[in-house]
Amino acid sequence: MIQKFRLGEPIATDAVVMELPICEGEIPYFKKEGTVLSRKLEAGDQVYGLGENLHGINKRGGIYVSNNTDDPNHTESKTSLYGSHNFLVINGTNPVGLFIDDPGNITFDVGFTHLDQLVITLKEENADLYIITAEDDESSCAQNSIIRQFRQMIGRSYIPPRWAFGFGQSRWSYPTEEAVREVVRRHRENHLPLDMVYLDIDYMERFKDFTVNKEAFPDLEGLTKEMLAQGIHLVPIIDAGVKVEEGYPVDEEGLEKGYFCKMEDGSVFEGAVWPGLAHFPDVLNPEARRWFGLQYKFLLDMGIDGFWNDMNEPALFFTPGGLERFWNRIEKFRGRTNMDVYELWGITGAVDSLANSSEDYQSFYHEVDGKKIRHDRVHNLYGYNMTRAASEGFDELCPEKRILMFSRSSYVGMHRYGGIWTGDNHAWWSHLLLNIKMMPSLNMCGFLYSGADLGGFNSNTTEDLMLRWLEFGVFTPLMRNHSALGTRLKECYQFDRTQDFANILGIRYGLMPYIYSEYMKAALDGGMYFSTMTMMYPEDSFAPQVEDQLFVGESLMIAPVHEQNAEGRYVYLPEQMKLLRMRSISDYDEEILPAGHHYVKAALNEILVFIRPNRLVPVTKPAETSAEMDFEHVTLLGYVLDEAVYEYYCDDGVSKDYENPANRRVFRVQA
Amino acid sequence: MIQKFRLGEPIATDAVVMELPICEGEIPYFKKEGTVLSRKLEAGDQVYGLGENLHGINKRGGIYVSNNTDDPNHTESKTSLYGSHNFLVINGTNPVGLFIDDPGNITFDVGFTHLDQLVITLKEENADLYIITAEDDESSCAQNSIIRQFRQMIGRSYIPPRWAFGFGQSRWSYPTEEAVREVVRRHRENHLPLDMVYLDIDYMERFKDFTVNKEAFPDLEGLTKEMLAQGIHLVPIIDAGVKVEEGYPVDEEGLEKGYFCKMEDGSVFEGAVWPGLAHFPDVLNPEARRWFGLQYKFLLDMGIDGFWNDMNEPALFFTPGGLERFWNRIEKFRGRTNMDVYELWGITGAVDSLANSSEDYQSFYHEVDGKKIRHDRVHNLYGYNMTRAASEGFDELCPEKRILMFSRSSYVGMHRYGGIWTGDNHAWWSHLLLNIKMMPSLNMCGFLYSGADLGGFNSNTTEDLMLRWLEFGVFTPLMRNHSALGTRLKECYQFDRTQDFANILGIRYGLMPYIYSEYMKAALDGGMYFSTMTMMYPEDSFAPQVEDQLFVGESLMIAPVHEQNAEGRYVYLPEQMKLLRMRSISDYDEEILPAGHHYVKAALNEILVFIRPNRLVPVTKPAETSAEMDFEHVTLLGYVLDEAVYEYYCDDGVSKDYENPANRRVFRVQA
Repeated sequence: MIQKFRLGEPIATDAVVMELPICEGEIPYFKKEGTVLSRKLEAGDQVYGLGENLHGINKRGGIYVSNNTDDPNHTESKTSLYGSHNFLVINGTNPVGLFIDDPGNITFDVGFTHLDQLVITLKEENADLYIITAEDDESSCAQNSIIRQFRQMIGRSYIPPRWAFGFGQSRWSYPTEEAVREVVRRHRENHLPLDMVYLDIDYMERFKDFTVNKEAFPDLEGLTKEMLAQGIHLVPIIDAGVKVEEGYPVDEEGLEKGYFCKMEDGSVFEGAVWPGLAHFPDVLNPEARRWFGLQYKFLLDMGIDGFWNDMNEPALFFTPGGLERFWNRIEKFRGRTNMDVYELWGITGAVDSLANSSEDYQSFYHEVDGKKIRHDRVHNLYGYNMTRAASEGFDELCPEKRILMFSRSSYVGMHRYGGIWTGDNHAWWSHLLLNIKMMPSLNMCGFLYSGADLGGFNSNTTEDLMLRWLEFGVFTPLMRNHSALGTRLKECYQFDRTQDFANILGIRYGLMPYIYSEYMKAALDGGMYFSTMTMMYPEDSFAPQVEDQLFVGESLMIAPVHEQNAEGRYVYLPEQMKLLRMRSISDYDEEILPAGHHYVKAALNEILVFIRPNRLVPVTKPAETSAEMDFEHVTLLGYVLDEAVYEYYCDDGVSKDYENPANRRVFRVQA
Repeated sequence: MIQKFRLGEPIATDAVVMELPICEGEIPYFKKEGTVLSRKLEAGDQVYGLGENLHGINKRGGIYVSNNTDDPNHTESKTSLYGSHNFLVINGTNPVGLFIDDPGNITFDVGFTHLDQLVITLKEENADLYIITAEDDESSCAQNSIIRQFRQMIGRSYIPPRWAFGFGQSRWSYPTEEAVREVVRRHRENHLPLDMVYLDIDYMERFKDFTVNKEAFPDLEGLTKEMLAQGIHLVPIIDAGVKVEEGYPVDEEGLEKGYFCKMEDGSVFEGAVWPGLAHFPDVLNPEARRWFGLQYKFLLDMGIDGFWNDMNEPALFFTPGGLERFWNRIEKFRGRTNMDVYELWGITGAVDSLANSSEDYQSFYHEVDGKKIRHDRVHNLYGYNMTRAASEGFDELCPEKRILMFSRSSYVGMHRYGGIWTGDNHAWWSHLLLNIKMMPSLNMCGFLYSGADLGGFNSNTTEDLMLRWLEFGVFTPLMRNHSALGTRLKECYQFDRTQDFANILGIRYGLMPYIYSEYMKAALDGGMYFSTMTMMYPEDSFAPQVEDQLFVGESLMIAPVHEQNAEGRYVYLPEQMKLLRMRSISDYDEEILPAGHHYVKAALNEILVFIRPNRLVPVTKPAETSAEMDFEHVTLLGYVLDEAVYEYYCDDGVSKDYENPANRRVFRVQA
């Protein structure tokens, strides 16, 4: 059951697609005092959800602030990442789900200040609150009932083309056509499957959206087609900010039409990102949004069929006003050869306040339904609406074709328009673990097409971290190896164990019929692609303790190794399962393991896959691109005790005839 | 067997106290090419050692740079912390130990660039190398033989007074006498045992060493005595830099005697730390060292008997020259309202280069044996010699009495003069785990009196992290709760579960006879206080995989819970042991667990302690200070299958008659 409550005058976010009546009276399950909602957490309660955030699958013990932020150091003390996903489920004696539809700043203190107190603080008393409880017949798995109702309420998740489930290679940057060709060539030479090469900011002419650096990429259209002929999709980046530059048509047209965010006095807001000062399309205004979305035509027309939207929190390196404040703040220290520590902090603090400053976010406005709304009030909607712009543009420009689209910044609702990647992580083992923990939380909030920068974006990776991370990445819908300028080169062919890398990618490609089928069913039926132990085994009393095992679809459990030098790991089985210790899609040990705790060995080149009883996994013969693979004629892996039934979803992977019954067929295997 | 090789003309560090002949010929076990030593790592080899460093007990997969650094963000990608401990053991098919006695910059690439390559790069070819192999009769536990020989070679570890094994409460800062009294009062009210209160930088008059802020501490001597009467020792901080100030006697005398580090032109070097510009005592010069050490008399005379030496990497916030370079670097951008990203990085980079700049470390000199040596060549010796200064001062000023002394920065050799704490960690669960992993590595390098800032120095802690971290801190010789300015107050009485905190501290105090006895034997006999699984069970093939269990002395194994919301953990037992699940020193479950893997429950207020077969643990009744406890009449916990023998070390805890045979007695228990 869903109850909708309205506080004040909420901003329309379009996060929710279901029409619901507004309830009057007290909000149940929570104590409300002004802008604070609170609730006691019982000893055994778990708190799930909150999408892209730090800490565990169980969010207890953390504090989380919905405030989309471009912060590249995801340490344990950070409270905000790139997305705001204000949905949580309290799972325990009195289970309830809560979605707060409010794009402003919200703090979730989930047993951080006091272990047994959940305290949620909104900045303003203007929000729609949705209280979700299990349907009567689903009380034994209340969490799942709550999540399913929430997912129905927010609408169908984004569906990418099937080739987007292939492996993608990225780097900041492959700065020339030759660099791109070399990446493909070296993957092919080493029989490393590959479907995508990403183009980071340097493909553009001086970081200008919808332009091409003609020196480095003299014929991007030709290159795109040359690559497509080899089964490789080029996926360029698009940034939120449009460079301020006379004679640059995108900027000039946006200015002329009044489509950029403005300051209070009506002048156009300028903030610096990669190209220096930029204008920010007011994607909350439907006209401006349509205009920005149609700009993607420039690249679609070249044959490009995938994009990633970046810097759309929006990130701000500085603003002219901020720079002025900076120079004023440090002027008094100018030329000094001695200072005390507080004066020194005056300078370092001034520098720190240049980027992503709350003062700057309070200085510009959007036009929403004819009303001027200050940016900070709707900050968390920006990335969502930039991505919605693109998606609506694609629908208009090429309605029959799926386009790959994922974003850095997001808000619930954006899950209908694109996926997300989890931003600028580091080559840290703890970030591999974080990646594992984040996935089901994202799925709960509708974000199914997702993944991390495998091997880590910042910092130098090691071969073992790269291997272990790819071994988990095998199961994330978005499987991309990406890394930052200045870090160690980390394409799979840069390491010593190239064959191991090829085998791991081969496992991904071999499993792709299952991965794609499970993804499509999760998207179309509002289900989970990644599930937690508590979702799959709600009655299991140990399940809430398991934070590093996931279920992929209905048949598989995975237990990724996420510690350096580990030759195996502990695994908890809530019931008997079949272990496949995979070295490649065709080379694996099989073993039936009973329910309970196990230490399971997994060498550096081995992936632990567990098949649940009476479940099936359709696989196919891997190829070097997904386009070359046979998704129609699949082989079934399984663990059949008596009878196993599997509903296999398969379509052409590019058109949108999702609901065609022919896409679903049933496999039945008797023991 | 120890073989000493000499490269070029090494700096005399006094790290090694044993006279050894210099071997001629090829260095065995390593390939040497110029300043690079390398060796293949076999699949099963582990690499142990390197003291205070990140990553695992097994250092494989990391890169480590000996370059003592004040960096408060110990993330996985950092390569240098506060100490340089250039001793490692390769444990495996062909075990060998290596100590590089060179206080300059050294990089240890332990399978980081290539998983199977150890590559050690010295900056200069001037170093003493010690190759250590197992004694013939110890080949079955080669690692232990190598470590024992190394420890003999570097001399006896520092011994603090016994009260320093009590619990200490610290904060940046308790800025007044009243604040100190309140800390003690609230511990007493809540029956929280306490032996020490630390004074951070604010007790000084404007951060000047060997002064007292008379407004905040009108009678420090009186306070010290008042506290001592309650069994509380005040432990003030001493910083490396001496404030530049006319009329400040320490500065004036140091200047007059020429005891501060100088620039190339003979002028005195100035670098800014807490008090602004400061002079740095040239503690490498024995005369200056003696002079600095005797300054501690100012506080010793008040009854103070413990100190912590800080900022002695030495940390530099900036220098006048660095500030000048900074202003020059940013001048060209001054007043700009637009910049491109590279220009912006010019400003942020200029700010980042202010602190701890290698340019500054290259700009001043020490006088060593009459020779001028540039600081960067001996950088890693500074904290060592500051602490040696203090220790030698104590020997001269109060030769009969043990003084508590520990330091932030260190080098092998300093272990004879003081302990270390592990610097400015964060309230991160990963830093609790890091604390666990770091301890045996430090012990290997001679640093026995050590511990981390429990609960985390930076960032806001949570009650559960505080509890779990204290549950490990129960076993670290230095047990201190410390936290930074601006973070959440975290004295044990600030949380909801005060009784749990009191019980945990009670376990520490109850175990103190064992902890102190094991510490003293480790120090006097050159043994390990914290041992790893591979040290204790060298034949156990799973032992190298265990990174989060430690042995405390000879009788106990601990398995700290280091994950949030965990209600237990996996534990590996190499043989049958007795589990004590302790809620207090007198309230615990007992269970005999067989060898193998176990999931063991441990509620938030429970400590898992395992007693090895036929081992004993002397305990006593806890009190609110260690001074009130009976160390003579102890009770024995044990797991006696047939017969258990324990050598109990007990002395008066303050004098230095360590070798008196009466200090050692033997307990024998028959089953």
